[in-house]
Amino acid sequence: MKIKAQSFHPWRTIERREVLAVPGRLTVAVETVELPDGRVIDDYWQVVAQPYVVVFAQTADGRVICQRQYRHGPRRVNLELIAGQIEEGEHPLTAAKRELLEEAGYTSPVWEPLGPYVASASQGSGTAHYFRARDAVQVQEPASGDLEHAELLLLTREELVAELRQGAFATADNVAGVALGLLS
Amino acid sequence: MKIKAQSFHPWRTIERREVLAVPGRLTVAVETVELPDGRVIDDYWQVVAQPYVVVFAQTADGRVICQRQYRHGPRRVNLELIAGQIEEGEHPLTAAKRELLEEAGYTSPVWEPLGPYVASASQGSGTAHYFRARDAVQVQEPASGDLEHAELLLLTREELVAELRQGAFATADNVAGVALGLLS
Repeated sequence: MKIKAQSFHPWRTIERREVLAVPGRLTVAVETVELPDGRVIDDYWQVVAQPYVVVFAQTADGRVICQRQYRHGPRRVNLELIAGQIEEGEHPLTAAKRELLEEAGYTSPVWEPLGPYVASASQGSGTAHYFRARDAVQVQEPASGDLEHAELLLLTREELVAELRQGAFATADNVAGVALGLLS
Repeated sequence: MKIKAQSFHPWRTIERREVLAVPGRLTVAVETVELPDGRVIDDYWQVVAQPYVVVFAQTADGRVICQRQYRHGPRRVNLELIAGQIEEGEHPLTAAKRELLEEAGYTSPVWEPLGPYVASASQGSGTAHYFRARDAVQVQEPASGDLEHAELLLLTREELVAELRQGAFATADNVAGVALGLLS
């Protein structure tokens, strides 16, 4: 059903001023943008965080590799898919494979990109590159150098959806990963 | 499957210093945090954006109310659920009802909270409060005061999943909303 037809013109960035730049972490900029109807907004804030990967990895029997750990963003223990920051110059798929090996000790012969998604429609923020890995097999112990201590879990689809319903995930990017893994 | 049992201790914030505060938009702070193993991290960045609502609203025949519009965060036209910022002092459910009425012209007699989710496990960023609304009915024309010009769409579950698969959504928070609406 279509209520009104629209032509969608992009906004034009007239000026962009970096207000805060923390190398390897985030950049905050304020833009002056011109809307298609001619209006000019002179304080459109944009946050650019580091790009990262989120991996929906399944073993041959369909179990999804998850981690339970305390995270300081939501300030609580939460369930997560395998994820991590893309290093400087690293290809997203390379980062996905590296994170699956480091965080879970698994490798996979079958990788499928599920798309890039930004965190916010207005501020942009960090871009997450999603991947699905199938037939993952454990080849080593997890050896993450991350700050968090994680418990590795292999969840069936039913267990995963039950955890989602109970609010075990705390972050929208991970819930999105579950959606892309199960619905795509 | 559990590889190692863990006790999950929260991190302790020893110091928090606001580096940038834009009222009504965002706050960027850098924290000194102490990890459970005693390590101290003195540059843990946190971004706090404004809280907002995302509404998975369905009509009596199960169609999901969506909008297609240009958004400056992902810098492209994308598909979205009904969403918007929570005003100062406003209850999230009140904001959800207001946004559904303003953006789509719909009201609903049945509301169900689907939980709060932060954007990022590390930086936190904005909290999205998700709701499902059922049996939504149109009572007025959309009358949004937003900057974007949107096309309103009523999608069946199959159409929604097809759009998701084609990458029509550009933001992780909206993909999360589809997951919570369809899987919860």
